[in-house]
Formats: sequence, C-alpha cells, structure tokens
Amino acid sequence: MITVALAKGALLKDTVRRFAEAGLDFSAVLEPGNRLLMVPSACGQARALLVRNADVPVYVSYGQAQLGVVGYDVLREHALPVAQLVDLGFGGCRMSVAVKASSPYRRAADLPAHCRIASKFTRCAEEFFDALDLPVELIHLAGSVELGPITGMSEAIVDLVATGRTLAENGLIAIEDLFHSTARLVGHPLSLRLDDGRLQGIVDRLAAASQVGASTGAA
Amino acid sequence: MITVALAKGALLKDTVRRFAEAGLDFSAVLEPGNRLLMVPSACGQARALLVRNADVPVYVSYGQAQLGVVGYDVLREHALPVAQLVDLGFGGCRMSVAVKASSPYRRAADLPAHCRIASKFTRCAEEFFDALDLPVELIHLAGSVELGPITGMSEAIVDLVATGRTLAENGLIAIEDLFHSTARLVGHPLSLRLDDGRLQGIVDRLAAASQVGASTGAA
Repeated sequence: MITVALAKGALLKDTVRRFAEAGLDFSAVLEPGNRLLMVPSACGQARALLVRNADVPVYVSYGQAQLGVVGYDVLREHALPVAQLVDLGFGGCRMSVAVKASSPYRRAADLPAHCRIASKFTRCAEEFFDALDLPVELIHLAGSVELGPITGMSEAIVDLVATGRTLAENGLIAIEDLFHSTARLVGHPLSLRLDDGRLQGIVDRLAAASQVGASTGAA
Repeated sequence: MITVALAKGALLKDTVRRFAEAGLDFSAVLEPGNRLLMVPSACGQARALLVRNADVPVYVSYGQAQLGVVGYDVLREHALPVAQLVDLGFGGCRMSVAVKASSPYRRAADLPAHCRIASKFTRCAEEFFDALDLPVELIHLAGSVELGPITGMSEAIVDLVATGRTLAENGLIAIEDLFHSTARLVGHPLSLRLDDGRLQGIVDRLAAASQVGASTGAA
C-alpha cells in the first residue's frame, strides 16, 4: 500500500487534482463532511494521510508515507531528510521581508542591527540575516505575524506573501524576497531505493502532469 | 491604554465572559464577522490582541500586552518570562500520555526504552520522560498527533485530553497524566511593577470573579 502525506489547507485542492491526473483519485479528502485523517484512494491501492503542512516532511522522513506534497517554504524551514522529486508548480508564493509602509526601510540591509524580526519561519529568517551579516533578534510567532510591526514588537517580519492583500490590509509592504516557493513532491529516500517501480511510476506521471501544467500556464 | 492578549480558540468565550465580570467588555471579538486582530474594549480604555495560544506569552513577555490569558499547557511548553497571576479555572484538560488501546502498555514506565513519542508539546514530554529516566525519541508534530500511533510512527503520544472523545475515536487510551491545565491570567513583570493601580484592579477583579466561579462550580 502506497501512503501519501498531503498538506491540509491551500495546497490540497491542486494536489488532489494533480494526483488524479497521475492516476490516483484522492477526491474523497475534499468532501466537505470528511473527518478522516487517513483516506483510501478510489482504487484502493493507496491512501492519503491528511496532515498539517509542517508534518508532511515528518511522516515522509520516517517512511510512514512514501510520498508527500508540501510547500518549499516548509522544506526549507524544517530541513528534514526527504528527497525532493518534482516541482509541482502550483501554490506559488514568496518568502519576504516586510515592514510598515510608513517606515524608512526599503531593503533588508537598511534594517538597524539588533532589530527584532517576527516570523513563523525563524530558521529561514536566521539564514537570510546571517548571510547579510546583519545581527537581528528573532521572535517566533505561531500566527498573525503582521501584529509584530503593528504592535511595535518588531521592526519587520519574514512571512509568506501570495497576493500581498494581508500585508496591504495591515499597512505593511514587502521590501525583499528570501526565495520563491511552490508545492513540491517529496519522497522517503529508502522507499524510493527499494521501490519495485510503482512509486517511480507515480513520480513520473506527476512530473509529466506538472510539465503540461507549466507549459500551458495552468497552476 | 491597557492591552490584553487573548488566545483564539477554545478559551476565548470564557475569557471574554470573565473580563466582562471584571469590568472590561471585549465582546466585539466574539462577533462572527470580526476580522480585526486588535479590538478595542467597549469603554475604549483597553484593547484586546487576538492571537494564537502559543503567541500569548510572547506578546506578554515583550510587554506589548500587559496582561494575557492562556492555558497552563502553553506556559509549561514555552517557558517564557511572564508572571502567573490568577488560575481562572475554566478550560480544564489534562496533558496525558496515550497509547493504542490494543497495546500492552498501561503506565508510562511500561513503554520500551528508545520508543518514539509524538507530541505538539515536546518540551513537556521531554521533561516528563527525563524525570522517569526513560530515554525516548521525541517527534514534534504540529497537529493530529493521534496519527502517530495509528500509522505506527510512534508507540505513544503526549497530548491534551479534554473529553477523551478524540482519543476514543482513534482507538487510543490515556494511561498517565503529566499535569492538569486550566486557563491562566499572566502579566508582564515590569508593567506590573510600574503599575499605577489600574492593572492590579483588573487582576483583583478577575481573581474575585474566578473565586466565585470556582465556589459555585461554574466553569
């Protein structure tokens, strides 16, 4: 039985559509009344684990799921031993430094040394400011990072920006990008090595479907 | 202006009710259409920050909120420098070790050395198993911790248990409690020290309301 860890939330709908194109129908996970965390595929040959974003690489690194789909941002932040297999192309967003629109800062390097940076992605933020040689104090928040600059707790934030609407609503602007993120297919290295061809078949079909998605501009 | 950090989610309704009894009306945060993260009290003398559970002690420790309400479980897990002021009595639950009902383990000490424990509260779990002198491998999950034993990734979990319904639905049973948790009023130590009496007035009224709540058995 092949187990696939799928991230609840923004990536789920596109993920299910892409797997359907590759021959695995997990559409049951999208049914409004679904409360199951472990959902069999329509063919009965595979199952989906419905988990939080950050937990996808955990289940895949322990081999409880042989495959998983999760944002590149999560892979960067948690740095667990999983194999990155396919850039699925959808779920595009940027990891950005943002400040109050009324502040004088227009590049990350403008920020004062030892200023405070609030983020859900403190590891990504730490790497970025280390590379800039700018010492900062990182404040880990679990959500609503915009409140950092609004309340005056931090000079800036590092957060995912998709449309920029949340930033604008809170009087913030993005001033610099750390990286661009999209949904990635990841795999358990040992399972891929011991694969009898079935996993590779799914990977190949998802790669082909992602090529088509990319060349037609569909996300 | 007094700022109070309130945890979104299960504690919010009781928190707002208790603050109303103490003279601060934050009922606007409960309005279904509310999207604001910073909500003024009806009297205009205070404001509420609506944040995630884990972020309440962050805002209070940095003094961005002078007071906050959050579960004891979060205070134990994050161990930030805030003053615990009042046990508000509601939001009762236990931090428990749970295993598959079909497993042979009936006490935490029965678990095999080097077994895996999945938890959102890995610091609490680490302290508990350290005190038992039982070496375990901790796996941090962001949600749906029940999947740890179900998928076979972990022998046990450490998680909050309120009614026990989620455990039962997933074929798990609690075998030992780490501690009991309730909602706590916390404060920013320096703000309390520099207080002109207004903060202490709120603390005293919340303490009095909590006494009444406790003695009449209301939660």
